[in-house]
Amino acid sequence: MIRMDWNRRQRHLRAALRVRRPRVARIRPGSLPGTLAPVDKAEPPTITVITFNRESVQERRVESIDGALAAITPGAVTWINVDGLGDPSLFGRLGERLGLHPLALEDVLNVPQRPKVERFDKYVFVILRTMRLERRPDVEAGGAPIIDEQVSLFFGTEWVVTIQERADGDSFGTVRDAIRQGRGRAREAGADYLTYLLIDAVVDAYFPVLDALAERMQLLEEEALVQASHPEETLLRLTRLRHDLIGVRRAVWPMREEIAALLRDDSPLITAETKVFLRDVYDHAIQALEIVETLRETAVSVMELFLSAQNQRLNEVMKVLTVIATLFIPLTTIASIYGMNFKHMPELEWRYGYAYALGLMLLVAGIMVGYFKKRGWW
Amino acid sequence: MIRMDWNRRQRHLRAALRVRRPRVARIRPGSLPGTLAPVDKAEPPTITVITFNRESVQERRVESIDGALAAITPGAVTWINVDGLGDPSLFGRLGERLGLHPLALEDVLNVPQRPKVERFDKYVFVILRTMRLERRPDVEAGGAPIIDEQVSLFFGTEWVVTIQERADGDSFGTVRDAIRQGRGRAREAGADYLTYLLIDAVVDAYFPVLDALAERMQLLEEEALVQASHPEETLLRLTRLRHDLIGVRRAVWPMREEIAALLRDDSPLITAETKVFLRDVYDHAIQALEIVETLRETAVSVMELFLSAQNQRLNEVMKVLTVIATLFIPLTTIASIYGMNFKHMPELEWRYGYAYALGLMLLVAGIMVGYFKKRGWW
Amino acid sequence: MIRMDWNRRQRHLRAALRVRRPRVARIRPGSLPGTLAPVDKAEPPTITVITFNRESVQERRVESIDGALAAITPGAVTWINVDGLGDPSLFGRLGERLGLHPLALEDVLNVPQRPKVERFDKYVFVILRTMRLERRPDVEAGGAPIIDEQVSLFFGTEWVVTIQERADGDSFGTVRDAIRQGRGRAREAGADYLTYLLIDAVVDAYFPVLDALAERMQLLEEEALVQASHPEETLLRLTRLRHDLIGVRRAVWPMREEIAALLRDDSPLITAETKVFLRDVYDHAIQALEIVETLRETAVSVMELFLSAQNQRLNEVMKVLTVIATLFIPLTTIASIYGMNFKHMPELEWRYGYAYALGLMLLVAGIMVGYFKKRGWW
Amino acid sequence: MIRMDWNRRQRHLRAALRVRRPRVARIRPGSLPGTLAPVDKAEPPTITVITFNRESVQERRVESIDGALAAITPGAVTWINVDGLGDPSLFGRLGERLGLHPLALEDVLNVPQRPKVERFDKYVFVILRTMRLERRPDVEAGGAPIIDEQVSLFFGTEWVVTIQERADGDSFGTVRDAIRQGRGRAREAGADYLTYLLIDAVVDAYFPVLDALAERMQLLEEEALVQASHPEETLLRLTRLRHDLIGVRRAVWPMREEIAALLRDDSPLITAETKVFLRDVYDHAIQALEIVETLRETAVSVMELFLSAQNQRLNEVMKVLTVIATLFIPLTTIASIYGMNFKHMPELEWRYGYAYALGLMLLVAGIMVGYFKKRGWW
Amino acid sequence: MIRMDWNRRQRHLRAALRVRRPRVARIRPGSLPGTLAPVDKAEPPTITVITFNRESVQERRVESIDGALAAITPGAVTWINVDGLGDPSLFGRLGERLGLHPLALEDVLNVPQRPKVERFDKYVFVILRTMRLERRPDVEAGGAPIIDEQVSLFFGTEWVVTIQERADGDSFGTVRDAIRQGRGRAREAGADYLTYLLIDAVVDAYFPVLDALAERMQLLEEEALVQASHPEETLLRLTRLRHDLIGVRRAVWPMREEIAALLRDDSPLITAETKVFLRDVYDHAIQALEIVETLRETAVSVMELFLSAQNQRLNEVMKVLTVIATLFIPLTTIASIYGMNFKHMPELEWRYGYAYALGLMLLVAGIMVGYFKKRGWW
Repeated sequence: MIRMDWNRRQRHLRAALRVRRPRVARIRPGSLPGTLAPVDKAEPPTITVITFNRESVQERRVESIDGALAAITPGAVTWINVDGLGDPSLFGRLGERLGLHPLALEDVLNVPQRPKVERFDKYVFVILRTMRLERRPDVEAGGAPIIDEQVSLFFGTEWVVTIQERADGDSFGTVRDAIRQGRGRAREAGADYLTYLLIDAVVDAYFPVLDALAERMQLLEEEALVQASHPEETLLRLTRLRHDLIGVRRAVWPMREEIAALLRDDSPLITAETKVFLRDVYDHAIQALEIVETLRETAVSVMELFLSAQNQRLNEVMKVLTVIATLFIPLTTIASIYGMNFKHMPELEWRYGYAYALGLMLLVAGIMVGYFKKRGWW
Repeated sequence: MIRMDWNRRQRHLRAALRVRRPRVARIRPGSLPGTLAPVDKAEPPTITVITFNRESVQERRVESIDGALAAITPGAVTWINVDGLGDPSLFGRLGERLGLHPLALEDVLNVPQRPKVERFDKYVFVILRTMRLERRPDVEAGGAPIIDEQVSLFFGTEWVVTIQERADGDSFGTVRDAIRQGRGRAREAGADYLTYLLIDAVVDAYFPVLDALAERMQLLEEEALVQASHPEETLLRLTRLRHDLIGVRRAVWPMREEIAALLRDDSPLITAETKVFLRDVYDHAIQALEIVETLRETAVSVMELFLSAQNQRLNEVMKVLTVIATLFIPLTTIASIYGMNFKHMPELEWRYGYAYALGLMLLVAGIMVGYFKKRGWW
Repeated sequence: MIRMDWNRRQRHLRAALRVRRPRVARIRPGSLPGTLAPVDKAEPPTITVITFNRESVQERRVESIDGALAAITPGAVTWINVDGLGDPSLFGRLGERLGLHPLALEDVLNVPQRPKVERFDKYVFVILRTMRLERRPDVEAGGAPIIDEQVSLFFGTEWVVTIQERADGDSFGTVRDAIRQGRGRAREAGADYLTYLLIDAVVDAYFPVLDALAERMQLLEEEALVQASHPEETLLRLTRLRHDLIGVRRAVWPMREEIAALLRDDSPLITAETKVFLRDVYDHAIQALEIVETLRETAVSVMELFLSAQNQRLNEVMKVLTVIATLFIPLTTIASIYGMNFKHMPELEWRYGYAYALGLMLLVAGIMVGYFKKRGWW
Repeated sequence: MIRMDWNRRQRHLRAALRVRRPRVARIRPGSLPGTLAPVDKAEPPTITVITFNRESVQERRVESIDGALAAITPGAVTWINVDGLGDPSLFGRLGERLGLHPLALEDVLNVPQRPKVERFDKYVFVILRTMRLERRPDVEAGGAPIIDEQVSLFFGTEWVVTIQERADGDSFGTVRDAIRQGRGRAREAGADYLTYLLIDAVVDAYFPVLDALAERMQLLEEEALVQASHPEETLLRLTRLRHDLIGVRRAVWPMREEIAALLRDDSPLITAETKVFLRDVYDHAIQALEIVETLRETAVSVMELFLSAQNQRLNEVMKVLTVIATLFIPLTTIASIYGMNFKHMPELEWRYGYAYALGLMLLVAGIMVGYFKKRGWW
Repeated sequence: MIRMDWNRRQRHLRAALRVRRPRVARIRPGSLPGTLAPVDKAEPPTITVITFNRESVQERRVESIDGALAAITPGAVTWINVDGLGDPSLFGRLGERLGLHPLALEDVLNVPQRPKVERFDKYVFVILRTMRLERRPDVEAGGAPIIDEQVSLFFGTEWVVTIQERADGDSFGTVRDAIRQGRGRAREAGADYLTYLLIDAVVDAYFPVLDALAERMQLLEEEALVQASHPEETLLRLTRLRHDLIGVRRAVWPMREEIAALLRDDSPLITAETKVFLRDVYDHAIQALEIVETLRETAVSVMELFLSAQNQRLNEVMKVLTVIATLFIPLTTIASIYGMNFKHMPELEWRYGYAYALGLMLLVAGIMVGYFKKRGWW
């Protein structure tokens, strides 16, 4: 009766839509900077190497990082991809051989970092964050969870190293295909163009996520207004959506900034031709950001819609109570009066006393109904 | 009775004012940059060419883009207008002949893009977004829907190419008329002045839209206060209006920015004389933006007005309930007391017991009325 | 009874405080830039000319603009003032003779424009907006309406042209008096100093308007707390005040910005000495802006005060209802029990049954009152 | 009963905490700039002069400004302090003798001005605003009123002139003592160091005011939660505190800005050594500003706490009403049924009919209580 | 019954979670700048000195500051750490010997100062604020209190002086260990690298604090939705959390700014190599700031969730009341009618009158239930 399960249902709901704690970089106070500490729950890394030039492509999976580094040959672009952060020594070795700064390597392992671009003499270091929807068959209420993954990237004149946080789910499938098939300029240009393709893949991955968020927003807007059966779920989902938007914004905002820094950079590692393409990625990043901001503003207005619809419902409930109570309470009073046991009550003796009492009641009820009609409550 | 159709009416309303999902650029993660993919539901393009100089005007409709490009002649300005994005190969051909960058052409097809200005060596690329009200006879509740269309524009020294997203509804009628009739400086100046006229037409098209939004706001302000019959519709319309404003702002804000970029540009393609005119367009863009911001602030205050008026009504309802209940419940109690069946109840035997009871009731009611009057509730 | 006239009163109120639609520049999409179209409802212009130097002043009213232009003589400053925009040809003629840019003249006619300063080779073009309170004897509820008028100003080395939108209500009376009487430096300095005096007059005109707004705010703050009789009027007035503040801010903000631009300008038309004075006007503009911002923040807090006082009153109403209902409903229940007609009800036969029942009621009522006292509701 | 004095108490309260209208500069539209008009209610000025160098100090009170100006001697620093703005001619004379700009003098008289720094060739002009708490024995509810006073300051190479708006309450007592006793560097450095000491005294005067505001905030936070007896007073005090914060911020913000301008200034009147000290004052001004901003943010959250606690109390009240009403209304219904006078009502004849009826009532009440317990309302 | 202890419980709660007044710098209006006044409740200082170079480390605890200063030797880095501000003369002596500016020393003593970096000729002065959680066994409700401590730091070419406000709780344990064990570059680089290590330790100390705040937020989000038993505690804790966030932000924001200033500085005291490391600290500071901002935004949305859940509960309560009242009040009216004592009431004589009356009641109740079901209230 009258949903007595409010609390129980919420507990259930909360369990289903497990509260996602924001991921915070595991900066350990007390560790020295530049220490490559092992990462909790990190997956063991797998390494793939692609070496290509205009004429040919060589692709293989190697076991050790030394095998990968051996593939770097002049006159060709070598792309080393590492999936999983499970082996700190691998990164130590990589840094030693390519001359990477220890702090940069620490940032690779110490996920999640803020997106950033750092330029060194012989290479450029880029951190990005990619997002994708988790594909699960049983998702329903709050939409598919968003997976957030750090992608680190180093590039020099003839090599690119990418490091992905998670072993499952590759972000660079298209780029790999384009190189294999020699589509577009993919194999003609140098390491900076490959870097562009990779950044482009990361930025474009946001759009399906944003589209899913927009769809969730649209559903919530409808629910906010109709509030069919479980307002508490709508409320929870709206809060979740807002938190997801805060998270996405936190990833996209610095990314836009850092691609702009890359554009402004006059490093010889990036050709003028590639910059034209980077400008395009930059536009995409701004678009993603604007969509996030639009959704955030929309979320605020949907929250207000929800609150206002709640108020409206309370008003409706109170009107019903008021109409019923003010209609019947006076009638009860009249009936109670003629139920009194005084000896001398002349009306009780009247022949048409009963009819008179009923008439009086009808009259009072009629006046009340008229008043309600006048106020538009009926 | 007491509007039991709240939910049904809302479902109806929602169907009428179909929730408009924000248009998001169809950036496909996984496609290579610079790919001219066919556009969903794009209309087949129609091409018109106007070639003019101070002395003469030639205007015709051509079938193929090659026919249009053949019209470019030295010593005259050629304006090629394409309506509809239905044929990607047309744009590929256009890009090839005029030396346009593939990413620019991708942005033309991949609507909606953020407004932007990109300067290349031989030409400047401009993306704008125009808005207009859909003219439909049956529109009533939420105001006419706003149509949002991307307008792309390339201009070189002696040619201008404009590409409009939708085949219906031309944004450039006035400019065409001015060239035909040789009004003002329309035929005397070069391609940059024509570009100015076209941008001016796009920016000025916002003002009737803003005027319609201001009118809707004004109606909603009145409704928010009176709330005659269907508060849920007012609420929905207000939310819609806020979302429309978010959309318009998202279009106008970068447009202003990009016209400023065009003003700062020192490209030889834009003469100093034309810049004076561009400064005027820039002022119009700022004015449009300020009106949007004013309307957004007004919307917030109207929402608060609505909520406050809702509260006020709840207060009124509760006062009525309180007055009636506190007036009659004590009377019922008194009447019930004298309706008890105790053997020994001296009052019941009194000669004027009944009158005494009625008098007691009147006294209590009088005290209550006095109390309400004192508090200003009566 | 209980104010059943809520809706009727509001309709009345709304009619009295006619909703003022924000004035939007009549930018007509479809008109060519630089066209001097006739202005709707514009008043026929009247022209006055003052020519002065250190020694003498000549002041007269002329019929045609040519008569005014003839008054410009070397070695003296000529100030031409036009009141009313009713005759576009007048401005065409003016532009032709003084070499004014057609877009500038279009801005003069196409009111209201955003305040701005544009520097040309031979002259500077300034648009300002002045405000004043309409003086009407019958104003009461929402304060005197604010009149908003565009003032356009051109100045060269030896001439100043001012154009006021409305024929009634001159903004420059003090300046005129100062020139006539040769007070201060009014007649000693050049056209730039005269320009300063005119801008100063425009900016200072805001202060009485701001003072009136501050007074309305103060009254509303009191009303928000006491809410004597008509909360809906308070609410409406507060909303009106907020909209007025949005309007004033929209005028003042760009004015401050544009006076700053004038200060930064290195045009030879403005002497270093006059700049010291312009810096003072700039300070006044900032002060006006800060007062507006302060009032806006105050308005937000007054709105919250109003809402909170509304809530408080609802709480009070509900407490009264709760106290009365919980006091008397249990008594009614007790009385009803002893009003049942069972054959065997021992209490009914008791000698002091009636006294016992009344005692029981008193006891229950006493417990309730005690409970209310404990909670601080009594 | 149930506080029927809401309105009367508020009227009383409002009278006690007289609404303070924000002070607005008395800029008179219609007066010529540079006019030294008499100030309303200004107190007659008193003049003190201190002349000091490393060896000696001379301090006296003079009657006329000429006496003060005569004290300026080479090789010593002369500090002229004027308390009260009552005599415009004094300032005219001062300006004439020291070559001060008429607009600067107008700002001295035309209080309150926005804090500012203006650099002239031979002197620098500084306007600051000081605040202090009024010391009154009878203050209680809203905290001691804040007194806001303009301090104007001119300094050249060997002289400093300070003008304080109010004759009572000197802001510079410490500086005076330091000079008298030759403490620190007070007598060793020049006019710029004295200026620094004076500005430091003005800025530091804000901290006791901010501390008092913080204390009021802390009290209000407690009241907001407990809301013992008079929520309307809490509400009023909170609004007052917010308005006071708006006022303090309006004074501190430009002061910080202008001290920064003084720091950036390369005037020969300020030595590099003094700038190190000014940087310290600047830090204090920023700290004051940050405390104001923190208090403003806190005020918003306290307001929300207040509203939320109000809601919570309404919920409590409504729960009590609901529990009592739903407990006793069904019992009344049962009792009324057995109070009906039908001839044939079998239960009435039962031997244990009365017990049965009471049992039924207890059962219903028990079910209700169980339901309330389940929902956690009991 | 129905939690009558609201007020008492709050008083208790408030006492437990003692309201923390924001710490405000004890700037005493009236004291001369550069005065080293004794600090209230300051702990007596303890001094430790570490002198190290690549080969060796010397660490000892000294009694007087002169002993510490004697340890400074060329060719080695000397780090003097002072815990506790209890002895102003110590700092006077320190300033004298190392040539520190009196204002800097005043800032060291006059806690809390805003974080800042000031560059002098021979040394750089840095103020930071560190935070850590107080470790207390009995903390439960509002999370462990945050301890806020000022850390001042001076560094020259071969020496570093650090001053910690509190004698308990050292912030630099890790750095000390790293020097002792010669880990990383800790002993190889100069005083600037040591400074970097110290700043890094301060910044990284924020992350456990932020993590604890995030955990509190997560708990509050759950409580806001479920609101099991004591909503007033949730409210209080949420307000406390918001105030804590305001406090943390006030510390982190200027710290980020000042590290940026250190990065931009071209002082010869900081080598290019160390700047690469400072850039890393800068990134950490930005990350801390972003987490704070994210938590602040989350706090706003949790507050709205709380308010909305409160509203929802009120709606539930009111629905229960409405359903019960509208179900039973009409039945009472019917029963009362047949309880009237009129002589001629035909129904009373009917054989099945009683059954008819009960049927009528059931019918009315059924209609009501049907109506509630239709509205989804049942």
